[in-house]
Amino acid sequence: MELALGGLLPPASQLPQRLHEAMRYAVLGGGKRVRPLLVFAAGELVNAPVERLQHAGSAVEMIHAYSLVHDDMPCMDDDVLRRGKPTVHVEFDDATALLAGDALQTAAFEALTMQALADEPADQLRMVKLLANASGAAGMAGGQAIDLASVGQPLSLPELEHMHILKTGALIRASVLLGSYCGEPLASAQRDKLDRFAKLMGLAFQVVDDILDVEADTATLGKTAGKDAAHDKPTYVSLLGLKEAKLRAAELEAEALACLDEFGTRAARLRELAHFIVHRAF
Amino acid sequence: MELALGGLLPPASQLPQRLHEAMRYAVLGGGKRVRPLLVFAAGELVNAPVERLQHAGSAVEMIHAYSLVHDDMPCMDDDVLRRGKPTVHVEFDDATALLAGDALQTAAFEALTMQALADEPADQLRMVKLLANASGAAGMAGGQAIDLASVGQPLSLPELEHMHILKTGALIRASVLLGSYCGEPLASAQRDKLDRFAKLMGLAFQVVDDILDVEADTATLGKTAGKDAAHDKPTYVSLLGLKEAKLRAAELEAEALACLDEFGTRAARLRELAHFIVHRAF
Repeated sequence: MELALGGLLPPASQLPQRLHEAMRYAVLGGGKRVRPLLVFAAGELVNAPVERLQHAGSAVEMIHAYSLVHDDMPCMDDDVLRRGKPTVHVEFDDATALLAGDALQTAAFEALTMQALADEPADQLRMVKLLANASGAAGMAGGQAIDLASVGQPLSLPELEHMHILKTGALIRASVLLGSYCGEPLASAQRDKLDRFAKLMGLAFQVVDDILDVEADTATLGKTAGKDAAHDKPTYVSLLGLKEAKLRAAELEAEALACLDEFGTRAARLRELAHFIVHRAF
Repeated sequence: MELALGGLLPPASQLPQRLHEAMRYAVLGGGKRVRPLLVFAAGELVNAPVERLQHAGSAVEMIHAYSLVHDDMPCMDDDVLRRGKPTVHVEFDDATALLAGDALQTAAFEALTMQALADEPADQLRMVKLLANASGAAGMAGGQAIDLASVGQPLSLPELEHMHILKTGALIRASVLLGSYCGEPLASAQRDKLDRFAKLMGLAFQVVDDILDVEADTATLGKTAGKDAAHDKPTYVSLLGLKEAKLRAAELEAEALACLDEFGTRAARLRELAHFIVHRAF
C-alpha cells in the first residue's frame, strides 16, 4: 500500500512542487491504514487481484487523508499534531493545506479510473458512485457538518450514532464494499452480510476512537488526546460512560464477527481486522 | 441547467441543513454557466440526450463552484463578493465554506455516476477520469497552486500560459469533451479538432478574464474588479499590455472557430459560445 500510494501521488520533484509535497506529506509515512486493510481483507473474500485492491485502497486512504488535512485546519479543529507530526497547514501553510486536501480528493476519484478495477466497467462505475456517496454530504462531509453543529450541544445516543455513521462509518463501510467489487461476484445474501459487517465495524471504530481519546496519551495516539472533552464534543464515553462504551465495542465486535461465519477461512483477515479495530491501542 | 443543478444538490430542508444551504448558495442563482453551456453545445455535435448533458454539465459546474468557494476563503484570495453576493464564508462561516466546497467536489463525481451518461459504461468511466484529471493536481488545483506561488513573482508568457492552461483551461476543455462523450461517437480526427477548439477556448476565456479585471467595474463583474493588480498577480494584460491582450483574444477566437469548420451547422452553438466567451462584458 505504501508503494502503491507513493506511485499514485504526483512526484514531489514535479511542478507545482509545494502542492505535491504537501499531498505526499499528508498521505505517506504514517497512519494505521485501516481502510486499505479493509479493502484488501474484503478482496480476499473474492480472490481479487492485488493491483486492483491497491488502487481501491489508495482511493479510500486519499479520501481519509484529505478529510484529516481539512479537519485539522484553523477554521475547523485547529489541530497541530497528526500521526505524530505537525499537521499540513502547520508544516506548510493554510492555503497549501486547503489545495492539497482538494487535490487529494480528486486524486482518490482518479485512482478509481486509471485501470480496470472490476470485471465489468459498470461495476467499476458503481465503485465510483459508492465512494462519492460515502464521502460527500450524505456521508463523511455531512457527518463532519453535524459534528461541527453539535459542539456544546446535547446529543441523544441515536443522534450521536447517526453522526458517526456518516462521519466515519460510511467510509469504513465503503472500504469493505470496494474491496468486494474487485473480484468474483458475491451472492446477494453474502453481499448483505458483508455490508452488515462493514456497518458494524464503522460504529465499533468510532466507539473505540472515543475511548482512546480519553484513555490514551498524545504520544501513543500520534494526535492530540483529550480533544473531544476539551471541545465539549459529545462522544460515546460522555454519553454512556467508559465502562458501557467498552461493553458496546465488544458487542459490536461479536455481532460483526457473526456476519462473517458463512465465509469460512476466506474471512480470516477480516476477522483479524475486526479484532484489531476493537482492541487497538492507538 | 438551473433545474438540474437544483435537483442534484441536497435539499436545504434536509439535515445537515447549514451544509446543504451553503452548497446550494454556492451553486444556484448566479454564474454565467459557461462550462455547462459548453457541455450542451458539444452535446449538440453528437445528438446527445438532454438528461445526460444535464448531469455532465452539473458535474463541471459543481467543480467550478467548489473551486470558487475555496478560492475566496481568507487563507486564499480572501474575497467578499462573488456573483454579486457575499462569498460563502462571509454569508455562512469559514468551516461551512470549507465543507461545502469539499462536498460540492464529491457531488460532482457523484453526478457522473447516477445514471448512464454514455452508451458504453467504459466511456462513462473515461468521463470520470477526464473530470478528475482536469480538476486535480495536474489541472485546476495544480494551476491554483502555481498561481499562489507566483504572486509578486515575474512570470514569462509561457509560464503564465501554463498556469492558466491548468487553472482554467483544463476544466473548460473537459466541459467540451464531456459533452461529446454523451452521444454518438466522434471519429478520432474530429475528436482531435474538438479538443483543439476546447483548449483554445480555455486560453481565450482567461485572456478575456484578465482584460475584464482591468476594464470592467465590480458591479458589472459581480466580483471584485482590479483584484489581479491589487494582488500583484501576473496577467495577460500586465505582460502584454491591454491592446496586445485584446489582439491575442481575437486570434484565439479565429483559430478556435477554424477548428469547427468541418462540423457544419451542428457546431452553431459552439460558435456562438466562442463569440460570447471572447466578447462578453462580465
